[in-house]
Amino acid sequence: MKALLTGFEPFGGDRLNPSEMVVRRFSEVGTSELPGLEIHTVVLPVSFRRAGMVLRGLLDELKPDIYIGLGLSAGISFVTVERVAINVKDARIPDNDGEQPVDEPIDPDGPAAYFTTLPKKAIVRRLRESGIPAAISNSAGTFLCNYVTYISLHYSARYGYPRRAGFMHLPLLPEQAATRSGERAGIPPSMSLDTMMRAVKIALGTTMEMFGGPDERLPP
Amino acid sequence: MKALLTGFEPFGGDRLNPSEMVVRRFSEVGTSELPGLEIHTVVLPVSFRRAGMVLRGLLDELKPDIYIGLGLSAGISFVTVERVAINVKDARIPDNDGEQPVDEPIDPDGPAAYFTTLPKKAIVRRLRESGIPAAISNSAGTFLCNYVTYISLHYSARYGYPRRAGFMHLPLLPEQAATRSGERAGIPPSMSLDTMMRAVKIALGTTMEMFGGPDERLPP
Amino acid sequence: MKALLTGFEPFGGDRLNPSEMVVRRFSEVGTSELPGLEIHTVVLPVSFRRAGMVLRGLLDELKPDIYIGLGLSAGISFVTVERVAINVKDARIPDNDGEQPVDEPIDPDGPAAYFTTLPKKAIVRRLRESGIPAAISNSAGTFLCNYVTYISLHYSARYGYPRRAGFMHLPLLPEQAATRSGERAGIPPSMSLDTMMRAVKIALGTTMEMFGGPDERLPP
Amino acid sequence: MKALLTGFEPFGGDRLNPSEMVVRRFSEVGTSELPGLEIHTVVLPVSFRRAGMVLRGLLDELKPDIYIGLGLSAGISFVTVERVAINVKDARIPDNDGEQPVDEPIDPDGPAAYFTTLPKKAIVRRLRESGIPAAISNSAGTFLCNYVTYISLHYSARYGYPRRAGFMHLPLLPEQAATRSGERAGIPPSMSLDTMMRAVKIALGTTMEMFGGPDERLPP
Repeated sequence: MKALLTGFEPFGGDRLNPSEMVVRRFSEVGTSELPGLEIHTVVLPVSFRRAGMVLRGLLDELKPDIYIGLGLSAGISFVTVERVAINVKDARIPDNDGEQPVDEPIDPDGPAAYFTTLPKKAIVRRLRESGIPAAISNSAGTFLCNYVTYISLHYSARYGYPRRAGFMHLPLLPEQAATRSGERAGIPPSMSLDTMMRAVKIALGTTMEMFGGPDERLPP
Repeated sequence: MKALLTGFEPFGGDRLNPSEMVVRRFSEVGTSELPGLEIHTVVLPVSFRRAGMVLRGLLDELKPDIYIGLGLSAGISFVTVERVAINVKDARIPDNDGEQPVDEPIDPDGPAAYFTTLPKKAIVRRLRESGIPAAISNSAGTFLCNYVTYISLHYSARYGYPRRAGFMHLPLLPEQAATRSGERAGIPPSMSLDTMMRAVKIALGTTMEMFGGPDERLPP
Repeated sequence: MKALLTGFEPFGGDRLNPSEMVVRRFSEVGTSELPGLEIHTVVLPVSFRRAGMVLRGLLDELKPDIYIGLGLSAGISFVTVERVAINVKDARIPDNDGEQPVDEPIDPDGPAAYFTTLPKKAIVRRLRESGIPAAISNSAGTFLCNYVTYISLHYSARYGYPRRAGFMHLPLLPEQAATRSGERAGIPPSMSLDTMMRAVKIALGTTMEMFGGPDERLPP
Repeated sequence: MKALLTGFEPFGGDRLNPSEMVVRRFSEVGTSELPGLEIHTVVLPVSFRRAGMVLRGLLDELKPDIYIGLGLSAGISFVTVERVAINVKDARIPDNDGEQPVDEPIDPDGPAAYFTTLPKKAIVRRLRESGIPAAISNSAGTFLCNYVTYISLHYSARYGYPRRAGFMHLPLLPEQAATRSGERAGIPPSMSLDTMMRAVKIALGTTMEMFGGPDERLPP
């Protein structure tokens, strides 16, 4: 079984992005704990133009069974599994190419939204049982994270791959939170890289199991 | 011009719902400040079955130009204008009839989502200029608030009315926050009823202006 | 009976300070609702050097029965009644004179702390019963708010007046929160000026009652 | 050099207390990374009566150079180093013996407060430089954490030992936050046990260094 796992490079003034670090760690340590899974990892640019091109190219080349996108959501204290991606680009800050689309559709001919197709509830349940704070999220925002999720689900709908696709948001790393201490709003929550790594492994493993057995009740 | 404004009755153990109070206040004081607007106000039951029936009945009967739904979002400190409604019912707690749908579609034949059609950005801008904390929200949740928004937009798409529809979430009232003081998580944020009333008037006025002039750039 | 009520001018880049506005409103509308109370209101500079001088001068001149200091605590969602003032100046930002003491004592010969002598618990109870979110706070910080509280209690201990002294922190006003909407940390909580006015009247009234009857159980 | 490190047993319905786990881990792994330090670890009962007795007994027996108390502060996202302990017991919930003192002095003859004597600012600086979110806190609350800190500083003042004493609050562990997911207020922040262990080692090491060189500027 083949999975594509993407993270993002840093943006918005940060020097680190936990999603990049998780993806790089995966490419180093491999996935011996997930036998039967061939995993491909890529760090995407925080650029609407380039991220879309790179992701489409990868999906066409790899035709993965599973796609999980990872991204940073500064301020959350837990891992989220996204429920839906919406057909809009609305950037509060410019992307790393200086582009800042406002209320533009991702695909003028696409539907308003796609529901993600990972076993969301099962993943969140396993994460919590494993001692990892996690929740379903009903919005992936309107920046790059929502964008790549929409694109991957558009691919699923149109071409049949990835067969299951979705997105997980990660908190800041402790070393990022530590440097924000002087800010007006205080120190934001964080999560260790080890816990994030465990979370993504659990998400991949839970998704793999779906393919073997009877399908879980799918979201509408 | 005709507007339908709905609030919700209390739920989840609360004795008050600010959206109900705003709607009742509107029906008492009238809308002399919004000349040319005929406003109809209704308090909806917090019941998937009955709220849908009541709202569909009202939309058919009134054929309003504008629909604004109001609801409570305990924990927010500002008014939100919702961007999108998604085709799912997923209740964390039972509704007031004891129903608790999990991951069910609102309409099995409907699209995954509808974008709301109020002038969202313009409303938020006016609210802030008027000293009212406000923001666009990208999720109306998966309970009754999202449900009635989806239904109203489904009506717009199918029957052409309401011509503009959307939803605003309101914080707790101060008197509600005051009674939650002993809870583990501390005292949640709140907003005065007067400020909420001003916010809804501004939302109605801003939406009315749209019908006269050239359309604002619509969301995708 | 004589009361001194102080607020602070704006600081740290803000154009407003709710404590100043409450104090000015008191001086305009008077205190006919608090018969028997002669109330003096002053807006203090946000300057360690000048605030101390002004407050000491006022206490010597007025010899008030009651002193209540008011100040802003950006980020809280409720009114606090402070329990204690500590003998330290430790400023995260410069005061309005550009002074920024770090870990200095307010009074090298003074005790480490004074407990405030307003009927704190009774005030919080009345505030909540009146629908106003409120709580005891165990720290007035280490900036101007703690400073004037310490000074007033030092006066009480040394000279016998004010007979009861303490401090209340106020949230941001809605119009302040509205302008912070674009910040990284989102929109902070706020409270209406009317609610703040009611809160301070209740605090004054509750404190006045103490002088008539048997003393409430005092803090240690 | 001798240090006493205390944690607390679980309380208030929790099955875990991170301060207990840090202390137990220290007693297992030893402190080979802190050469020259003889470290004694104890888990204190969450009981005003028994915690005081146990701590006084330990201080008399060990006469430690350094005392660091550890405790849980559910809801914080970072480690705190406390600045001050105040002479009050005011319990929001009963302790594990069912005692719930309200506004009682810890020591009717003691001062209103003691400033802690660890190198607080240096510890926080090192923690942040080491990538650990940390801040000075100006209140240790009015429950057991403040209580043992006050007692240890009272001992320092009266008997000369511990020579340096203070308290650090720890966030929830991820596995604790994970089980709170269904609560009204959402999922609280957390920190991994490994990060907490590193934080306490840094605090001990930074305090040890003080004894060798010229004293750091002391708090007032």
